[in-house]
Amino acid sequence: MRAAYMFGAGDVRVIEVPDPTLEHSTDAIVRVVRACVCGSDLHPFHTMPETPGGRSMGHEFVGVVEDVGAEVRTVRPGQFVIAPFVWSCGECDFCRVGLQTSCRIGGVWNTKGSHGGQAEAVRVPLADGTLYPVDVDANDERIPALLTLSDVYCTGFHAAITAGVKPGSAVTVIGDGAVGLFAVRSARALGAERVILMGRHEARTELGRCFGATDVVAARGEEGITQVRELTDGDGTEFVLEAVGHLPAFEQAMGIVRPGGTVSRVGVPQYAVGPIGREQFNANVTITGGVAPARHYIERLLPQVLDGSVDAGAVFDAEVSLDDIADGYRQMDERRSLKVLVRP
Amino acid sequence: MRAAYMFGAGDVRVIEVPDPTLEHSTDAIVRVVRACVCGSDLHPFHTMPETPGGRSMGHEFVGVVEDVGAEVRTVRPGQFVIAPFVWSCGECDFCRVGLQTSCRIGGVWNTKGSHGGQAEAVRVPLADGTLYPVDVDANDERIPALLTLSDVYCTGFHAAITAGVKPGSAVTVIGDGAVGLFAVRSARALGAERVILMGRHEARTELGRCFGATDVVAARGEEGITQVRELTDGDGTEFVLEAVGHLPAFEQAMGIVRPGGTVSRVGVPQYAVGPIGREQFNANVTITGGVAPARHYIERLLPQVLDGSVDAGAVFDAEVSLDDIADGYRQMDERRSLKVLVRP
Repeated sequence: MRAAYMFGAGDVRVIEVPDPTLEHSTDAIVRVVRACVCGSDLHPFHTMPETPGGRSMGHEFVGVVEDVGAEVRTVRPGQFVIAPFVWSCGECDFCRVGLQTSCRIGGVWNTKGSHGGQAEAVRVPLADGTLYPVDVDANDERIPALLTLSDVYCTGFHAAITAGVKPGSAVTVIGDGAVGLFAVRSARALGAERVILMGRHEARTELGRCFGATDVVAARGEEGITQVRELTDGDGTEFVLEAVGHLPAFEQAMGIVRPGGTVSRVGVPQYAVGPIGREQFNANVTITGGVAPARHYIERLLPQVLDGSVDAGAVFDAEVSLDDIADGYRQMDERRSLKVLVRP
Repeated sequence: MRAAYMFGAGDVRVIEVPDPTLEHSTDAIVRVVRACVCGSDLHPFHTMPETPGGRSMGHEFVGVVEDVGAEVRTVRPGQFVIAPFVWSCGECDFCRVGLQTSCRIGGVWNTKGSHGGQAEAVRVPLADGTLYPVDVDANDERIPALLTLSDVYCTGFHAAITAGVKPGSAVTVIGDGAVGLFAVRSARALGAERVILMGRHEARTELGRCFGATDVVAARGEEGITQVRELTDGDGTEFVLEAVGHLPAFEQAMGIVRPGGTVSRVGVPQYAVGPIGREQFNANVTITGGVAPARHYIERLLPQVLDGSVDAGAVFDAEVSLDDIADGYRQMDERRSLKVLVRP
């Protein structure tokens, strides 16, 4: 079959690889219906050292189950499924409390012998704990919206829920990528009265307004901090949802959060240390968030996707065939696309 | 009157200064009954540059009101009062939600024209919002216990409550100073089933056991992390209360906290940046805590101090006269005393 591999920074190719097969009795084979390129795929796209063997890519996909191992109970061939971006057993103590990202035997795609979703098919480990079956067929027009539940919608929601966004509150969202936009939507869904979206790409911030942003601030850094403070009587907001991952975005979050408030990070940190000294301590700022246990949130968010009350599929503004996926990476890298859908 | 001033690292002297007077109609003058030396006083005791004019010291004291300004309503001359380590208006939005440490017009002792509590008397700004009157007389044997409510008991409680310690949970407390010991006590009061106290001073950790510690780990750093993990099936604890303030203690906390858990810091950070990168993000670790709004907690903690169900005064293992306070600093610095009571 064909699969996208990255061989180094900027070097994504579609190559021929063996078809996936059941390796364990808890595996399933899923034929990919749609995959996509994630903002976090752009980090290795910028920095990956030259890797002769390449690395399989992609962690967001939906598809149809083709085959299952002998122990698989909750999904069966022919079912449409959402694959969250972490595979997990569903049974350990972490999975049971909804922290599937810390599953004792789980992993992320492209590690521990698993492969990525930017491919024609995928072997899914721990299929029962991982896959979420949905009663739609593979031609349903809601497929792109359902695909957002494999990562970006759930990740934006994770930001808002771990921050503890409350009814009537004011929230700043840093980053106008798909995760930031879903953080906007989620903050509003949790009752935030005011949501300030910080982003510079007008098409994206316009979608942010559709998702519920009440204000948009295009400036960054000190100037961005100043502008948000001006919008909030000098205080900043009680909740700041950081959906970028670069240190300046985190520093910006710390500059905007109100004393006693919370910064929730869902952008994968591209830094090892950050500002958590006296200033943050004196202001009683909480830092929370982390990698989102998407599997935990699918059940909660699915109804709004199915009934169309959230137009989740709107974050996809481009579509490429798997063969053209390198172009999809470039479109996102050059900010010509917000998020690129991939059709195997 | 006499007051303790610090003139540089290791250089504390008692000098003659003018008696405090009412400067604003919201001030009170409090005659100090007992003050004490705080672990955080040791930070400037180690690092303060030579300062010819000196700096007044002390932020924990109890006393008797001697005089009040025309606008003061809630305390009157002759009343015994607890002075929290931050003065605050009690009326602004931050004070009203219990974040008096971010009071819009408040401050800490020895700043904004105020002076410290290691003295015979103190001018207390914003007396109504700051002072907490208690119906005891100045010879009551519970005075040392009441003095802990000006800082250390409330600060230990702040660690446990901001961490969100839950009934049945496991908690690690880093630091066997007075704050750490009250963090132990507070974690237990909030229902923790297991409290691992990390400290090396046997007299202190013994008191920690009296306050409810179920385990004591004397090792620090990597070895300490390993030992706590061995005690907890390899996982660490869901809550870690960091009551030291040095970077290695924070790093230790991050090494001990269980995925999905919370580190609450109440030791004043002696660092500007710390480890909050990919590892902490992937484990969904929350960092919370900060400077404790002691004023907010006094009402809640006072009954146990008054009825003796918590032997809070036990953290004082030495007493000096104000004239001998330099010796008190040295006793604490050399770890000969846990916490030194000062008698003006």
